[in-house]
Amino acid sequence: MQRDARFLQAENVRLSENGDSVIIIDQTQLPGAVKYLELRTDVDFYDAILKLKVRGAPAIGICAAFGYYIMARRIAEADPVCGYEEFCHRLQDRKEYLNSSRPTAVNLSWALNRMEETLRNHEEASLQEILEILEEEAIAIQQEDIEMCRKISGYGLSLLKDGDGILTHCNAGPLATSVYGTGLGPLILGREQGMNFHVYSDETRPLLQGARLTSYELQKAGIDVTLICDNMASLVMKNGWIQACLVGCDRVAMNGDVANKIGTSGVAILAKYYGIPFYVLGPVSTIDRTCSTGADIPIELRKPEEIKEMFYEKPMALSEVKCYNPAFDVTDHELITAIITDRGICRPPYTQSLAALFGVETPNRSVE
Amino acid sequence: MQRDARFLQAENVRLSENGDSVIIIDQTQLPGAVKYLELRTDVDFYDAILKLKVRGAPAIGICAAFGYYIMARRIAEADPVCGYEEFCHRLQDRKEYLNSSRPTAVNLSWALNRMEETLRNHEEASLQEILEILEEEAIAIQQEDIEMCRKISGYGLSLLKDGDGILTHCNAGPLATSVYGTGLGPLILGREQGMNFHVYSDETRPLLQGARLTSYELQKAGIDVTLICDNMASLVMKNGWIQACLVGCDRVAMNGDVANKIGTSGVAILAKYYGIPFYVLGPVSTIDRTCSTGADIPIELRKPEEIKEMFYEKPMALSEVKCYNPAFDVTDHELITAIITDRGICRPPYTQSLAALFGVETPNRSVE
Repeated sequence: MQRDARFLQAENVRLSENGDSVIIIDQTQLPGAVKYLELRTDVDFYDAILKLKVRGAPAIGICAAFGYYIMARRIAEADPVCGYEEFCHRLQDRKEYLNSSRPTAVNLSWALNRMEETLRNHEEASLQEILEILEEEAIAIQQEDIEMCRKISGYGLSLLKDGDGILTHCNAGPLATSVYGTGLGPLILGREQGMNFHVYSDETRPLLQGARLTSYELQKAGIDVTLICDNMASLVMKNGWIQACLVGCDRVAMNGDVANKIGTSGVAILAKYYGIPFYVLGPVSTIDRTCSTGADIPIELRKPEEIKEMFYEKPMALSEVKCYNPAFDVTDHELITAIITDRGICRPPYTQSLAALFGVETPNRSVE
Repeated sequence: MQRDARFLQAENVRLSENGDSVIIIDQTQLPGAVKYLELRTDVDFYDAILKLKVRGAPAIGICAAFGYYIMARRIAEADPVCGYEEFCHRLQDRKEYLNSSRPTAVNLSWALNRMEETLRNHEEASLQEILEILEEEAIAIQQEDIEMCRKISGYGLSLLKDGDGILTHCNAGPLATSVYGTGLGPLILGREQGMNFHVYSDETRPLLQGARLTSYELQKAGIDVTLICDNMASLVMKNGWIQACLVGCDRVAMNGDVANKIGTSGVAILAKYYGIPFYVLGPVSTIDRTCSTGADIPIELRKPEEIKEMFYEKPMALSEVKCYNPAFDVTDHELITAIITDRGICRPPYTQSLAALFGVETPNRSVE
């Protein structure tokens, strides 16, 4: 299989050189320390996903696919003459264990199921052949993500000008995917091509993905980045420093309503007020054809401690004070200038442009 | 002098029962601990103001006025037969020392100058009479603040209904003033009258005044309060939970543009988008007749460490990442439904309604 030149640059999750383990950046240590972990056993993978050492839906899927392959190797090493059915049985057991690390993460089970299906399709192969096939499948999952990110980045970049000021919210960069990312992809691709952007990164309370991850990634990519608190976005826009907003997405309804990290809808309303384009970037797989509008998207509520205690030296509010801690909000389609996918750029009316994406075989430059 | 029944309830700054010291809440310990400090010496007062143990412009003024009186007592105790000129000289020295604790705090020098002027107006008085006069003047400063807060609270309350959901940003409550506060005043006054509000308090990054102080004050006042991160305001409004926004103000221009804590302008834009009234509350003294528009108001920039390090167990971003950390922003007058002062409620056009405030002798119910 032809490996992409960018393949070795996927630093957050990659196969080791001898193919016997997986190397990840421990995202819980960022930005204080850049610590690489070597995952060799089922417990290593389980622990890395459970404890958010690897995070971001595509990155979790990629890590799980490699984990499935590495667990297959461990089983084959322990019993080199293991029969096919027994091998499948043992691997299924390990798959279920790994799948329980974050049961609500869709990409985790999606990747593990795809690996298992690949195994089931090769009943006649030898143990050695099976290992090679599984390795290639895991690599394919990562390659496809790289390709997807590259396409989104290219489409997104076509909407930006050299020197633009950009506002971004949360983290939709390489750490959460493979390379480039989605929301940050155009910025990193543009920088590779010698373009200069001036990026303002919302810190993104309560979990601070913008401070801890986005400003880290952009700084390391040599992009001019300035960290702000979420409530400073209005003034930064008023100052005339922002020419476009770029954000990722967690789910897109068929009318163009977008669920993304809490605070995204507020940024979109500010952008509309100040007359700044607001772009959402994500793969076609993020578009949920079962959701007709954003009202169909449930909002996950998380625990108060994330607001009152997490990261802090001491609690920041009275223990009896209630918190409302939604993880996402829904941005109304009327606030969104364009939705940028790996199959092209969709513009309003989204009921037409998003529907047109499905059934289209080859990527088209612009879907209107 | 007739003392207001609410006088003893001014818990943040109050004269001790025997009048020999001042009791304050140490605001730096909130909300983790409610610790009262007794200030008896010049160094005690200097330290309390310098280290933000007492904060909020009106509260600092009140504390400094009492400090001036207590320092006068200390001088008289040390030298009971001290002559008037020598007494003034020693007290002026102590006044300058106290004034240097926060040189940019306007209310600090305003209160100290008023106390000194009172002293200078009583050359013929005995030492004992002077102490009594200074005590009454400091009490008058606090009484006037209570009266001002009460009027603002009453006007503000007239715009609210029992059961309303309220969004507030930063802290404009009793801790920052005397009792009631400005932005929080209508809520506390309404609660005293048996009304029930459902308040959402923005945590207000980076210094977290909403989490540390506002949610503390409202919870203690028996008001239903829910703490949110700043970026959750849009969703709370979209949910239909907010019937009015109440905020304080640091400076008001003559066209109705308002400088207040960073993030206020964003809340106002969201409120306009969702069709929710946005009210600004503050005394007439906050209206700056030398500022014709918000463009004349300088924005204080603070250090990056407040965003990246303060309160946190470890730095939350790479040390080399730049931060933009403005302490205030300016909310455009077109976003403000009404400006509520101690002389009445001003509505657009503000160039007329604010100008009408000056020259009006007695408080009028509504200035339009």
